[in-house]
Amino acid sequence: MKTKVATITLNPAIDHTAAIPYFTAGEVNRVTWEQIDPGGKGINVASFLSGFDVPISVSGFLGQHNADLFQRFFAEKQIDNRFVMVDGYTRVNIKIVDEAQDQVTDINFPGLTPTETDLSSFDQVIDSLIKDCDWFILSGSIPTGMSADIYGKLIDRLKRQGKTVVLDASGESLQQAIPFAPYAIKPNVNELQELIGRSLDDDRAIIQAAEDLIHQGIQCVVVSMGAKGAIFVDRSEVIHARPPQVEVISTVGAGDAMVAGFIVGKLQNFSLSDCAKLATTCSIAALSQIGPRLPPRDTIESWMSQVKIKSLLQTHR
Amino acid sequence: MKTKVATITLNPAIDHTAAIPYFTAGEVNRVTWEQIDPGGKGINVASFLSGFDVPISVSGFLGQHNADLFQRFFAEKQIDNRFVMVDGYTRVNIKIVDEAQDQVTDINFPGLTPTETDLSSFDQVIDSLIKDCDWFILSGSIPTGMSADIYGKLIDRLKRQGKTVVLDASGESLQQAIPFAPYAIKPNVNELQELIGRSLDDDRAIIQAAEDLIHQGIQCVVVSMGAKGAIFVDRSEVIHARPPQVEVISTVGAGDAMVAGFIVGKLQNFSLSDCAKLATTCSIAALSQIGPRLPPRDTIESWMSQVKIKSLLQTHR
Repeated sequence: MKTKVATITLNPAIDHTAAIPYFTAGEVNRVTWEQIDPGGKGINVASFLSGFDVPISVSGFLGQHNADLFQRFFAEKQIDNRFVMVDGYTRVNIKIVDEAQDQVTDINFPGLTPTETDLSSFDQVIDSLIKDCDWFILSGSIPTGMSADIYGKLIDRLKRQGKTVVLDASGESLQQAIPFAPYAIKPNVNELQELIGRSLDDDRAIIQAAEDLIHQGIQCVVVSMGAKGAIFVDRSEVIHARPPQVEVISTVGAGDAMVAGFIVGKLQNFSLSDCAKLATTCSIAALSQIGPRLPPRDTIESWMSQVKIKSLLQTHR
Repeated sequence: MKTKVATITLNPAIDHTAAIPYFTAGEVNRVTWEQIDPGGKGINVASFLSGFDVPISVSGFLGQHNADLFQRFFAEKQIDNRFVMVDGYTRVNIKIVDEAQDQVTDINFPGLTPTETDLSSFDQVIDSLIKDCDWFILSGSIPTGMSADIYGKLIDRLKRQGKTVVLDASGESLQQAIPFAPYAIKPNVNELQELIGRSLDDDRAIIQAAEDLIHQGIQCVVVSMGAKGAIFVDRSEVIHARPPQVEVISTVGAGDAMVAGFIVGKLQNFSLSDCAKLATTCSIAALSQIGPRLPPRDTIESWMSQVKIKSLLQTHR
């Protein structure tokens, strides 16, 4: 049987993209075109993994009053839905695309606040997922009112059950999770700088920071660097994956696509450099689509040769 | 048994009010406070009528993917829901309130386009409503792709069945409905100007325009004029209702509250001047609330004495 993966999204979102030419604050603006996507980092990762035929379960908290979009999406992608339904609305992030003025305006709504009862339902869902899944991907922000130590506690609990945990978080929740040493983390350069509390001016500094984290027990650190690609560090290798220049249609989901590609590689026992190549290809593939979407798997795989892989192990040690 | 009223809303909306201090186009903006209300003129009228214990049915077209808000609202208000469910989303109108800059930004999303099948389901709903209801209120805009003659056709059909029809529309759909002579219409001054094709510079011109419509067979014309109140004209009377100065919290639903108050008065066989008083009180009551809401019935009734009524019949004939 294939390894089953669970993604946890505590604070999902609906991504609502709206085109408004000459968008102006203080005026009445009419939307000429819109697209509504289920969003939230873990949901994006799950969606991308399902495109690679990885059996996938999802959980976290969803607002019951606008859950229909997510439910239809999970059914369509054959994603096993174990979200805890919370009274209220899942937050909406509106992106107003104004091509006439080459400008994007973001309107981010507040999210849900799960109650004690919701948290205890979530606890039970984790127990059920522990029975069914081997890999756990914990992604994104923490709902207002929830403690920032949630990721650390979850990693501890899952590792005790022999699970492999990937964390894609930032700020306080990432900081507090580091001592529990997840299998892998994927900060971008800014998140890594914030985590280690100093500026990272070149690749050498980034690699040093990643290796410090490896020494703390994390097995793989992936540092995404936008157009400059990503650096993948584990105990024995340092890989720099550099993408070709691509036209960016939308950055939504690009980091999540990198996480998904990395996991697909790992599940197939790829070398770190092949994982890096697939992960980076997935992230540029996400840039080619509006919203958190990937082109078909074949298309993605045909782009892999364009990613340049460089082993940096010998050059800096 | 009480007279049962049906309101028809072909193009409903969700009113999403969001507070963003210093809202700026081209930036990431965080919502500090939000309120989501079911909207659409006929739904507002139904909601207000239910507050006056009028038995009420609603129909029109609703998007099945975000119908939950409406369904809960109708259940809570004990409104009989006969909406036709259409594939897709009911449009959302976002109002960004920026108190720091004293500015409101509107983002209006496109609405649904009912299919031929939806239209034929709606036809059947009208048949069922004809069995149950005596008054029909037709309100608001027409969905994209639907013919502007829909209101005229509906009025004709309903009048042949002996029903009383109130129309609150504008533009082409109002224009095309006039020859079918609904019982009452409620244009604001701008809508009335557009309808008759000339500017209306004083009360006298407004009254003349209303009387011209009365001569075409409409029994009552209500012209709303914002802070200046409203003029109510029928075959035997002309009433000017003038509200007190009030602090405007939100204008959403004020016109619909006027329609609802007018109908409540008519159902109780009030004189035209008492209908005018109640209608105008309801409209100022709506101005005191955020979104399409009214304070409790008792509160509204306690404000009635503040509306000044003047009969203009003797002065202009």
